[in-house]
Amino acid sequence: MQTENKPLILICNDDGYDSNGLSYLIDFVRDLGEVVVVAPSGPRSGASMSITSRTHIECSLVKEESHLHIYKCSGTPVDCIKMGLEVILDRVPDLVLSGINHGDNSSVNTYYSGTMGIVLEACMKRLPAVGFSSCHYSTSSPMDNLREYVRKIVRYVLSEGLPMYTCLNVNFPTNDPIKGVKWCRMGHGEWVNEWEHQIHPRGWEYYWLTGEYESQEPGAAGTDTTGLSEGYVTITPTRLDLTDYSYLERMRDLEF
Amino acid sequence: MQTENKPLILICNDDGYDSNGLSYLIDFVRDLGEVVVVAPSGPRSGASMSITSRTHIECSLVKEESHLHIYKCSGTPVDCIKMGLEVILDRVPDLVLSGINHGDNSSVNTYYSGTMGIVLEACMKRLPAVGFSSCHYSTSSPMDNLREYVRKIVRYVLSEGLPMYTCLNVNFPTNDPIKGVKWCRMGHGEWVNEWEHQIHPRGWEYYWLTGEYESQEPGAAGTDTTGLSEGYVTITPTRLDLTDYSYLERMRDLEF
Repeated sequence: MQTENKPLILICNDDGYDSNGLSYLIDFVRDLGEVVVVAPSGPRSGASMSITSRTHIECSLVKEESHLHIYKCSGTPVDCIKMGLEVILDRVPDLVLSGINHGDNSSVNTYYSGTMGIVLEACMKRLPAVGFSSCHYSTSSPMDNLREYVRKIVRYVLSEGLPMYTCLNVNFPTNDPIKGVKWCRMGHGEWVNEWEHQIHPRGWEYYWLTGEYESQEPGAAGTDTTGLSEGYVTITPTRLDLTDYSYLERMRDLEF
Repeated sequence: MQTENKPLILICNDDGYDSNGLSYLIDFVRDLGEVVVVAPSGPRSGASMSITSRTHIECSLVKEESHLHIYKCSGTPVDCIKMGLEVILDRVPDLVLSGINHGDNSSVNTYYSGTMGIVLEACMKRLPAVGFSSCHYSTSSPMDNLREYVRKIVRYVLSEGLPMYTCLNVNFPTNDPIKGVKWCRMGHGEWVNEWEHQIHPRGWEYYWLTGEYESQEPGAAGTDTTGLSEGYVTITPTRLDLTDYSYLERMRDLEF
């Protein structure tokens, strides 16, 4: 299916195979390589790195053009990349991309994000991977102004690679024009006021998960949260190792 | 609902409110505090930090005893802790526990794990949190030999706390007797041979997600993978910050 002389780019997302942000990402990069898309059959926001263990998975080709194949998959975003890597592709991809997500995946949103779940899965498999997310939540927001940023970052990673176990989390601000690009650390924060209580017409009670993001270090220099609020594209280098080495060093001799 | 003089312990899990491992955990710690359990209504293995954004959530009290309340919740493991913290508890818990999971959550399994999703969510909200998992995959495996390890770790964290943004990932080996406890880093690895192709009686094709874990650094000293294989309880201090600081330092001046 793939030609050997162009870089092979696997694209996944969490908003679904027919999402607006995915169409933009395909359009931005399709002349840079052979593109294969494996995306969920519908929206899977907040899927994190969840995998499907108790339901079967189906996958089918929905579009085939020159240097572009698009598959849809019934599973989670991480199921999609696993399906792409093991079942669909006949060689190891040169790059894995995810997005462009409709919604901010900076700061702790990384943890809940299906977009970044895909990127972490690729990183675990020692493949260079980049996640792209826009802070516009509208699923129909235009993204033409992101084209050159996406292309520069993709070209850089195709040519220079990334360190093993490091991937990139790229977030785009809502302003246009964009002020530039900042390399950032992950800001600390949390979601608050997360539940809305409602009552069904027949009287039973239920909840919707909602809420607002609250920074735990508002205005702190160097975070992705601050960079985005100042109008910059933020690139957060993200490491596939959750170990707290300094605490480990302190505790190593504590016996239980 | 809670009495003020005992530590308040919130317990969640991903195997469901009626799971064997949860019953053991409650039994091991219930004399150490006021215990409130918020657990999924059924099994949610591999839920990672997924949250429910497009379905309503229901929650109900299923058991009420002296110093013990158990609620079941229709959502994901992370929905359960969010529901516990904001809707069910009337004060901030002194400790969040998760488990005891039926299955290994060491190494990169941390990322897919609902058990550790709960712990990371607590850590994000700056609460001390510990996840417990057993490498026995059987949902009926006896766990009495884990009692003293769980109690020592819980007592330690109740008395000493944990650094902000650090939580613990505790995994138990399958051997009995256990050799002791080791503080470890997260080993690197990945799942391979992940898809089993099958054909429905009516002819359509589908897949089950399965596979085997493969270490990327077999036998490496100091990893949780190695510690477990040698018969030790492993404690992996886990940090709520995915930033790759060394790469960030190198890239800070690269302009796009």
